[in-house]
Amino acid sequence: MPSDSPALASVPGFTFSAIKCGIRYPDRLDLALIYSQTPCVACGTFTANRLAAAPVRLCRERIDRPIHAILINSTNANACTGDTGYENAITLASAVSRRLSISDDSVLMASTGIIGVQLPVDTIERGIPKLIDGLSTGQGPLIKQAIMTTDTFPKEAGAYFTHDGRRYAVAGVAKGAGMIAPNMATMLAFVITDAPIARKDLDPIFRRCIDTTFNAITIDGDMSTNDTALILAPDTGQPLTDETALESFEAALLHTTRTLAEMIVRDGEGATRLVTVTVRGAKTDDDARTAARAIAESLLVKTALFGRDPNWGRIACAAGYSGAAFDERTLSISIESVQLLTDGVPLSFDKTALLEIMSRREYEIHVNLGLGSGRFSFMTTDLSYDYVKINAEYST
Amino acid sequence: MPSDSPALASVPGFTFSAIKCGIRYPDRLDLALIYSQTPCVACGTFTANRLAAAPVRLCRERIDRPIHAILINSTNANACTGDTGYENAITLASAVSRRLSISDDSVLMASTGIIGVQLPVDTIERGIPKLIDGLSTGQGPLIKQAIMTTDTFPKEAGAYFTHDGRRYAVAGVAKGAGMIAPNMATMLAFVITDAPIARKDLDPIFRRCIDTTFNAITIDGDMSTNDTALILAPDTGQPLTDETALESFEAALLHTTRTLAEMIVRDGEGATRLVTVTVRGAKTDDDARTAARAIAESLLVKTALFGRDPNWGRIACAAGYSGAAFDERTLSISIESVQLLTDGVPLSFDKTALLEIMSRREYEIHVNLGLGSGRFSFMTTDLSYDYVKINAEYST
Repeated sequence: MPSDSPALASVPGFTFSAIKCGIRYPDRLDLALIYSQTPCVACGTFTANRLAAAPVRLCRERIDRPIHAILINSTNANACTGDTGYENAITLASAVSRRLSISDDSVLMASTGIIGVQLPVDTIERGIPKLIDGLSTGQGPLIKQAIMTTDTFPKEAGAYFTHDGRRYAVAGVAKGAGMIAPNMATMLAFVITDAPIARKDLDPIFRRCIDTTFNAITIDGDMSTNDTALILAPDTGQPLTDETALESFEAALLHTTRTLAEMIVRDGEGATRLVTVTVRGAKTDDDARTAARAIAESLLVKTALFGRDPNWGRIACAAGYSGAAFDERTLSISIESVQLLTDGVPLSFDKTALLEIMSRREYEIHVNLGLGSGRFSFMTTDLSYDYVKINAEYST
Repeated sequence: MPSDSPALASVPGFTFSAIKCGIRYPDRLDLALIYSQTPCVACGTFTANRLAAAPVRLCRERIDRPIHAILINSTNANACTGDTGYENAITLASAVSRRLSISDDSVLMASTGIIGVQLPVDTIERGIPKLIDGLSTGQGPLIKQAIMTTDTFPKEAGAYFTHDGRRYAVAGVAKGAGMIAPNMATMLAFVITDAPIARKDLDPIFRRCIDTTFNAITIDGDMSTNDTALILAPDTGQPLTDETALESFEAALLHTTRTLAEMIVRDGEGATRLVTVTVRGAKTDDDARTAARAIAESLLVKTALFGRDPNWGRIACAAGYSGAAFDERTLSISIESVQLLTDGVPLSFDKTALLEIMSRREYEIHVNLGLGSGRFSFMTTDLSYDYVKINAEYST
């Protein structure tokens, strides 16, 4: 990331606040607010889990309306909490909109933390005046802290782009997809920009950027009830529509989401390696994704990465059961520059050199299906003792 | 299993042999033969992995022909070995048929072990005369030993059934689905019977028995290139066709495959628990299977089982992303008799009692989707430190 890359606080038009509200623990930043006085176009992607948490339901209902604020709490996911949970989300968003004198449905919400426990609504309502009174640019750096759960470091990234002599900022924060003890994981990401972009452009651009970044990483293959990625762009009535402007915006957004996604994988629970699995030569990009994902999620591959075992048979096997089309006779596999299998023929290779590569913190596995031009990269981690330890502790 | 349950050697009409052939290690039973002088009807189910191993290709081609023998080797999977690997399988099967003076295509083959390494054909061909000369009933108990890889105990099971005053035997052996160090896993199962059953009956009965046993267990979700389950029944020209006879046969076969499947899960790599996940109240049995499988394969669920963490949120979450139809408001979850969630409402429960249950070697998780009458049970293991250890060792 260039040294002059923007943080949330660098994006004109937004203010921020985070407090220790005592939602589940006494001394922890657990309630955060991102606010724009100008109404914003909002786009979002959400968990495909049938048990979508209450705040996800709320976001889905409001996402097409003019949005001023995102209220975020950690330590309680407000998931598996039924109608009461949903009403609680509505109540809290309303408490924010009332005090900010904005429209009732202009507040989105996101939650992460324990499942199946009702939010302490009174506690949070009591905290909201303090939260709103604290809104300032200076509180920007607190947002990435307040949304953390088992993350070991906060995650913030951004990029500038220039159009017609004016510089625009894109910046975002994220929290990791590893498991929360004692309950489950969530990937949350919030991106803001001062570039006015119309919904018809923002939506496909955001989806494309998510697709190859947040949707191309895996820690453990489990999909949380709360996964949410949101972007806000000011609705000034004069959006950028020029094609080169939109391309520059997309490049800045892609840099932001990719950097955040990489940070999430690097911070994967117990992870000692960040490995990119790139599948080329697939019939289609979708087929490449299918194969890359199966390899990236295979427990046998992930334990081999931990053990630095150049076990290409496990990689081939995962591609084989993925459902992607290919023929054994055109399958090739290499780890960085060390070729292991070419057109279905196993090669002898320099084990010492490969062990050195597999001892690196980050490296790439290349799989070529030898069929077409489809291509996709998935980022994954190894599966270590610490993953089991973090997730097996009796803690409920 | 009743104490008088049959082993392979108890099934009239079959002889067996196993030798230390030195395929990969000097002093290990690694080559086995099951032989019937009477030609048999054979049925099989095979891996859905696109990279099916050479012996799987051979079996698929021959399965509809009269079969006399199954040649099995361990320590080398003959997978990812291209046309040479396929020709090697043909060569070895022919070496067996020639010496037994049986038709060239009446020998099936199965392999398990390292991937991507050609079989030492000459070594095995030299061993075949000794293998065949050893054929006897007395060698029956060696088969389950010769097919083992990382299994910690051999697996054999069977059942008798009686029809029209005559007793028939069904017996089988299996090897586990855990990973082989340094390469991948295979589930192999071989069942034989002296009951003459026509193909039109044997095939659907065998598939039904596999579907709820071998196809309803998971250790790590990876699907091997070599998975094979075969059954041989004598083709006497006078098959049992009476409906009650076929029902008795199916019950005996189901007992056999279920017992073997349970043994495989109990012997899962690093497993400390055998947990049955039963989903009821699904729209369809298929939906119940989909949800049960997602729960059984979830890393977060499996680490919670290891940690004895009554984390029903992880169970709900896995059901939620499985794709099975259900509504949060009708979802109920219990572990044995301890109810955790009823119709979407989390319950307080006796943590001490539940910890005692989750400390047992075997127990059951019940999930009710509250929609219909679909039902399926999946058997799984916990995910322990030892799973990571067994599979991460640098051993290539």
